[in-house]
Amino acid sequence: MTERLVVVGADAAGMSAASVARRRRPATDLAITAFDRGHHSSYSACGIPYYVGGLVDVVDDLVARTPDEFRTRQQIEVRLGHEVTEIDPARGAVRVVAGGTARWEPYDHLMVAVGATPVRPPLEGLDADGVFGVQTLDDGAAIRDWLRRERPAQAVVVGGGYVSLEMAEAFVELGIETHLVEAAPHPMGTLDPDMGELVSTGLRELGVVLHLDTQVEGFDVRDGRVRAVRTAAGPVAAGVVALGLGVRPNVALAEAAGVALGESGAVAVDDHQRTSVERVWSGGDCCEKWHRVARRGVAIALGTHANKQGRVAGANLGGLDLRFPGVVGTAATKVGPVQVARTGLTTAEAEDAGFRPVAVTADATSRAGYYPGAAPITTKLVYDEPTRRLLGAQIVGREGAAKRIDVLAVALWHEMTVDEIVDLDLSYAPPYSPLWDPVLVAARVASGRR
Amino acid sequence: MTERLVVVGADAAGMSAASVARRRRPATDLAITAFDRGHHSSYSACGIPYYVGGLVDVVDDLVARTPDEFRTRQQIEVRLGHEVTEIDPARGAVRVVAGGTARWEPYDHLMVAVGATPVRPPLEGLDADGVFGVQTLDDGAAIRDWLRRERPAQAVVVGGGYVSLEMAEAFVELGIETHLVEAAPHPMGTLDPDMGELVSTGLRELGVVLHLDTQVEGFDVRDGRVRAVRTAAGPVAAGVVALGLGVRPNVALAEAAGVALGESGAVAVDDHQRTSVERVWSGGDCCEKWHRVARRGVAIALGTHANKQGRVAGANLGGLDLRFPGVVGTAATKVGPVQVARTGLTTAEAEDAGFRPVAVTADATSRAGYYPGAAPITTKLVYDEPTRRLLGAQIVGREGAAKRIDVLAVALWHEMTVDEIVDLDLSYAPPYSPLWDPVLVAARVASGRR
Repeated sequence: MTERLVVVGADAAGMSAASVARRRRPATDLAITAFDRGHHSSYSACGIPYYVGGLVDVVDDLVARTPDEFRTRQQIEVRLGHEVTEIDPARGAVRVVAGGTARWEPYDHLMVAVGATPVRPPLEGLDADGVFGVQTLDDGAAIRDWLRRERPAQAVVVGGGYVSLEMAEAFVELGIETHLVEAAPHPMGTLDPDMGELVSTGLRELGVVLHLDTQVEGFDVRDGRVRAVRTAAGPVAAGVVALGLGVRPNVALAEAAGVALGESGAVAVDDHQRTSVERVWSGGDCCEKWHRVARRGVAIALGTHANKQGRVAGANLGGLDLRFPGVVGTAATKVGPVQVARTGLTTAEAEDAGFRPVAVTADATSRAGYYPGAAPITTKLVYDEPTRRLLGAQIVGREGAAKRIDVLAVALWHEMTVDEIVDLDLSYAPPYSPLWDPVLVAARVASGRR
Repeated sequence: MTERLVVVGADAAGMSAASVARRRRPATDLAITAFDRGHHSSYSACGIPYYVGGLVDVVDDLVARTPDEFRTRQQIEVRLGHEVTEIDPARGAVRVVAGGTARWEPYDHLMVAVGATPVRPPLEGLDADGVFGVQTLDDGAAIRDWLRRERPAQAVVVGGGYVSLEMAEAFVELGIETHLVEAAPHPMGTLDPDMGELVSTGLRELGVVLHLDTQVEGFDVRDGRVRAVRTAAGPVAAGVVALGLGVRPNVALAEAAGVALGESGAVAVDDHQRTSVERVWSGGDCCEKWHRVARRGVAIALGTHANKQGRVAGANLGGLDLRFPGVVGTAATKVGPVQVARTGLTTAEAEDAGFRPVAVTADATSRAGYYPGAAPITTKLVYDEPTRRLLGAQIVGREGAAKRIDVLAVALWHEMTVDEIVDLDLSYAPPYSPLWDPVLVAARVASGRR
C-alpha cells in the first residue's frame, strides 16, 4: 500500500528530505506532499543580500527548484500558500489552511521543517514601512522594491550577524550611506572580540559607519514610514532599516502537538531526525543540532545543517539507516573584500561548555610572501589547555581566508590536538599558500606553547 | 659541555631542524653549523618558475633566510660553497671540501638533508647550452639570463610534472611559443588520466602546444647550443629547454656511510627522523616519508614534507620527543587560471597498494550558482570498495579549487569513509561555495552508490 509523507515547510530541510526519500522510494510506494505558507520553494535565503545589492538580478535565480520542477521531475507535490496550523498525531493528520479554508490532510510520516523567524524585539515603530526583516524571498523582493521606489539616502542595519554584514555590503554597493548599529562592542558575536575588531575594520574600510556598544531603543516614524533609528547615543537617520537580530526556531506547531523541545529550545530529535512523537520527523532551522564540540544540542539556523538533516531524515524515510553525526558550528561570510569564518567554540563559548580554553592568534598570508597578491590572513585557534584539543577557530582575511576554516572544521570533527594539526599534509603552491599554510602557522604557535 | 650539530644541506629540512633545535637549546649548549655546496640557503625552489616568468623580480626574494640572518638572529653558522663528501660515523666527523681544500669537521649529531637531483636521462645533447634543470636558484638565474640574452622564440618543456607545468606557464607569460613533450598520454602522472585530460585542456587554453604520448629521443645541437628536441614524432624547435622529469633522492653520501635506505630508495628513518646510524638524522627530499594511505615508505620531494620532517628532527635534537606521523601525498599546482590538486592515491596507485579502488567524479562550482563569477570545479574521489574508505582525491578547477583538497587530505588522515565525509560541517557562503561544497557533492555521489 502506498504510504504518504507530508512535509511542512518546502525549503532546505523539508525538500531535501522529500528528494532523498523519493530517490529511494517511487511514488507508487511513497506519495509526497509538501505544504508551505510562503510563496517560494527551496530557495537560498543566504542569497537575499546579493539580490538586494543587485549582484543577483532575478529573484527566481535564488530558487533551486520550483513546485513545477518537483512535480515533473520527482513526483513531489508542493503546495505553496498552504499553512499547516495543527498536527494531530493520534489520527496522523495535519490541518492545512489555504485560501481561507481549512482541511485535514492525512500522513503516514510527517516531516516538520518550518524554519525559524527573525527576532523582532518589542520596539516602538518596528512595524513602520521601510523596516524589513531579511528572511524570505518575499522580504528580499520587498526591500528591493522599496529601494527602487524610495531611493533612500541612508540605510541602517540593526544587529551585527552574518545577514547584517551582508546587507550592509549590499547597501554600500548600491551607493547608499550605510550605518550599522550593534549592541555589543563588535559585530559578529560568533567571534572572539579581537577577531570581531578585524571585522569592524573591514566594515569601516567598506564605508559602513559603525555604532557599536549602542542599544537600539526604537524607530522614529512619520507618515507611517521609518525616518530614524533611535539609539541610546542619539538618532541615526534611516530611509530603510534591515533587521538582523538573529532568528528563533519555529516550534509552536510541533510543541502544540506534544513534540518535545530540546535544551536549546528547538525541536528535539534523535540521531535519525525522529522527534519524540511517532512518525514525526524534523530538521532544519526549527530543529536542534547536536554540537560535537560543546556536547549539547544547539539551535543554529544554517542552510548547510538544514540540508544535511533533511538528507538524513529522507534517507531514513527511504529505508536506509542513517545517523546525523552533528555539527561543529562552521560558518562564513564576506564583508567587501574581507572574508570571515569560524568553527567550533569561541573562547567564551568554550568556557560555558566547561573547557579551560586558551587561544593563539597568528598572522600569515594567502600566498607565498614573494608571490604577487599575497594578502593577510589572521587565524585564531581556541584550544583546551589540559588536553590541548582544538575547540574552535576563527579566520579573518582577504582572498582564500574563509574556506581555510574547513580544514579546522574537519580537525575539530576528529578532536585533534593543536599539536597534531601541525603535521597535517596540506597543499602548498606559491600562488595558493605559504609553505606552512596559515592554519598550520597558527597551530605551530599553539604547539610552541607547551 | 657544548654539543655540536652539523647540518648537511642548508635548505628546507636542514635549516628547519637547525632552527627548531636552536629554539630549544642555546648556542652554549648546542653549536650548529650547516654546510651546503650551493650558493643559497633556505630558498623556495617552488618559486623558481615565478622568478623565471618575471612574477618575482629578484632572486633573493626566494631566499627565506640568508646565512647572515641565521648567524645574527639564531647563532647558526651556514657555510655555503662547502660540500660534505664523506661521513665517518665511527669518529663522528664529516669531510668538508671548500675552495679546493678538504678538512674533517666533528659532530655530535648530524642532520643529512641533501635533497634530490633532477633526473637526467642519458640523452644525446642533454648537456648543450640552453638545456636547463629546474632545481636550484642558480638554475633559475641561469635560465633567466639565457632568456634575456638569447631571446629564444620557442621553448620546450620536457616532462609533465608540477615544475614542468609551472615552467610552461612562465614561458607563455614571457610571450615565448611554448611546447610541452610528455611520454604519457597526459601531463600530471600524479593524477588519474581523466583528470590529467582536464589539465591538458587548461594547458592548451593557455597556449601551450602539447606533444603527448611522445618520447624524447635527444636534442639537436649546433655550435654547442640546443636547436630542437628530437622526439619519436619528429623534432620540436627549441631555443630553450626546461627539464622536468622528476627528481631522485641524493643518497650516495649517506649510503657510503652505511646509512640504510628504505624501500623507496630514499634514506630510511624512524618516526623520530633517526637513520639506522647512531647520531645521524635525516629529512627532506633525500629522505623517505611514511605514506599513511599506501602504508609504506615513499620518496616524495616536497618542501612541505621537508619542513615538517626537519621540524621533527630539530625538536628531537632539542630535547622533545616528537614523532613524524607521515604524509598523505598532498600537492597542488597552477596552470594559468587552472588549479590542480591531489592527495592520497590515484586509482592506479591504490591498486598497487592492494586496495580495490572505485572512483566517482563530480562537477560543481566555486560559488553559489547564482553568485557572479562561479567557476567550475571537478572533484574525483578514489575509495576502497569493500571498506568505503577514501583513498585519494583529485581536484581540477578555477578559483578556489586547489585548496579544497586540504579538506580531503584531513579526511584521509583520519581514514574517513566517503559516507562520513558527506556529513562534514564545512563552511558555506554564496561568494565562496555552493551550499554543498564541491568536495561534499563528490562524496554524496559516492555515498549514493551503495
